[in-house]
Amino acid sequence: MATATLNISFERSREKCRITIDNQILSRLPTSAFSGASSIAIISDDVVSKLYANKVKSRLSKIAKTSVITFPHGEKSKNLRTCSAVASKMSDLGLDRRSVLVALGGGVVGDIAGFVASIFKRGIKYVQAPTTLLAQVDSSIGGKTGVDTDWGKNQLGTFYQPRAIFIDPFTLDTLPRSEVINGLGEMIKSGVIADKNLFRSIEKTYSLNIQNLKPLIPQTCRIKARIVEEDERENNLRSVLNYGHTVGHAIEASANFRLSHGKCVILGMIAEGWIASKLGIFEESDHERQRDLLRRIIKSSVIETSLDTGRILGFAQLDKKSSAASIRMALPEKIGKMHAKKNGSYLTSVSKDLLLESLQVIRREL
Amino acid sequence: MATATLNISFERSREKCRITIDNQILSRLPTSAFSGASSIAIISDDVVSKLYANKVKSRLSKIAKTSVITFPHGEKSKNLRTCSAVASKMSDLGLDRRSVLVALGGGVVGDIAGFVASIFKRGIKYVQAPTTLLAQVDSSIGGKTGVDTDWGKNQLGTFYQPRAIFIDPFTLDTLPRSEVINGLGEMIKSGVIADKNLFRSIEKTYSLNIQNLKPLIPQTCRIKARIVEEDERENNLRSVLNYGHTVGHAIEASANFRLSHGKCVILGMIAEGWIASKLGIFEESDHERQRDLLRRIIKSSVIETSLDTGRILGFAQLDKKSSAASIRMALPEKIGKMHAKKNGSYLTSVSKDLLLESLQVIRREL
Repeated sequence: MATATLNISFERSREKCRITIDNQILSRLPTSAFSGASSIAIISDDVVSKLYANKVKSRLSKIAKTSVITFPHGEKSKNLRTCSAVASKMSDLGLDRRSVLVALGGGVVGDIAGFVASIFKRGIKYVQAPTTLLAQVDSSIGGKTGVDTDWGKNQLGTFYQPRAIFIDPFTLDTLPRSEVINGLGEMIKSGVIADKNLFRSIEKTYSLNIQNLKPLIPQTCRIKARIVEEDERENNLRSVLNYGHTVGHAIEASANFRLSHGKCVILGMIAEGWIASKLGIFEESDHERQRDLLRRIIKSSVIETSLDTGRILGFAQLDKKSSAASIRMALPEKIGKMHAKKNGSYLTSVSKDLLLESLQVIRREL
Repeated sequence: MATATLNISFERSREKCRITIDNQILSRLPTSAFSGASSIAIISDDVVSKLYANKVKSRLSKIAKTSVITFPHGEKSKNLRTCSAVASKMSDLGLDRRSVLVALGGGVVGDIAGFVASIFKRGIKYVQAPTTLLAQVDSSIGGKTGVDTDWGKNQLGTFYQPRAIFIDPFTLDTLPRSEVINGLGEMIKSGVIADKNLFRSIEKTYSLNIQNLKPLIPQTCRIKARIVEEDERENNLRSVLNYGHTVGHAIEASANFRLSHGKCVILGMIAEGWIASKLGIFEESDHERQRDLLRRIIKSSVIETSLDTGRILGFAQLDKKSSAASIRMALPEKIGKMHAKKNGSYLTSVSKDLLLESLQVIRREL
């Protein structure tokens, strides 16, 4: 298993963040990440906490008083109510401005813990300890935090960088297949947007066996780290990370979050890749390569969904990149390179009709 | 009436903010503060909106589509539920990442609108248009946003700078007496912590007539601007602005926010000034001058409160400056100068007993 350390330095917020990828790192988290902590709280969900919270707690208790706060697992928990309850427990436990949070879990845990860290007493430190493939290669990196609302996904949140990210590939051994697909979707996305070698590696070793994917984790993390470092607040470049997500998020929201994020992103890449091809942006041979790889995932995992096109369109218009007037998305030029317009912007306006047509393309693939 | 412009430049967040103090500025807000706005929403409460929302809206509608969103006035509205409802209305109205909010009202409106701006789609621009003396000289400046929780005041929030602050002294003409006292409390605080001339001006012209206080607004704003510019995130110096607030907030919370903020700060300064004197930090003659000035306010406005000392102590321990182990507060050395310890810190640890004793001092003044 590859061990790696990546340093990210954010010019905008002047924050620094170190990513450490190492087997069993959860059992020996370095004290330096918690220096000055008056107390520590591990934020987790009811499933992940049973697996790892004791291990992490017994390590951190040597540094400062450590508590565990949990909430029910799943996207349904990702709302302001959960944040309010977590913050209230933090107060009951006597956490103060110098306390440090640990986000122990998948993307939902990371988003909630990061958001609570950013608003508790106007901001305290936190570290990410992602335990899913998706969180390890994508959501734990870059400081996006947030919650879902009745009117859309991730509509309330902050940019707030963790002090450190500890990636323990050991935690992936217990990952259910659906979670492997979640992460694989983001890995393929990373390849399409920035790294043809990564894409080729996934094509060659294609497998839903997590042991075959583990060696690609550092390479995938590096792509995300490099992009968020260059554009922390998503003024432009960072929007390429949303490839597949404009349509993907809209599908997810329209299905009331009953479909997994990764599957929705895969469907989103099928739609957005097709749109890019239709607009003459995406080289056709590369579009076909992407489609063939995504097809293999769809075939090896049953993705059932009835697409409510009207609802999907509505949610796509609510996307943070969109404005009231137009739906905007980042589109690929070829595998490993995203399309930038002459003015430098990575976002292309897409008509409602083209978006609706792309949903028919997804239907045909299912 | 004094007209003034102050520029604040924040090194930490790299934000800039211009304060414009000018009579009737609400009728002619400069378009430059809204350049690039896709749409505008005026956030206000049910009382202030009736007075000024139409005037501001008719001006801003020339720049971009402008809506008004209101909520019930008062501290009781300052919670996550209100923020969630405001954000939901913003979404219904089609606001996007390039929309701009205007916080039109007093401190509660500013805190809520600023907090919503900081988390809506991970942050949009906003400007402050404070309409109370307290908000004009204090709360609109410096980017502190937040809401109250069951477990304390301002316990959840962010540091998020407004693009501009428009102070219209004309709005003060309709201010009720209790609101004049609210602002006067913060003005006296500003004098004690940083400007003996301001303190002397208030002593000399002492009056609850707002026309006599208006000329002191620019001077008071300048104190706050200078302090937050030097220490945006309250690492040290900014804590002096909390003089009177450790005890003041605790009294406010213990009375379930039925007492006005300004009155609580006045009581807080009586307690904390007494503590500073007892610890040999506050020069006795200046302590007496402060006490005499505050007494005049107490005598000219009935401040009724039954102090629940146990509850006040509990809330003081929850203060953001405090840690689990000790209550910490910024204390004056003399009028115009706060006490810094040898290590440079402006915070002094205060024992529970001394805090409880200071509450008896307040009792005697009432």
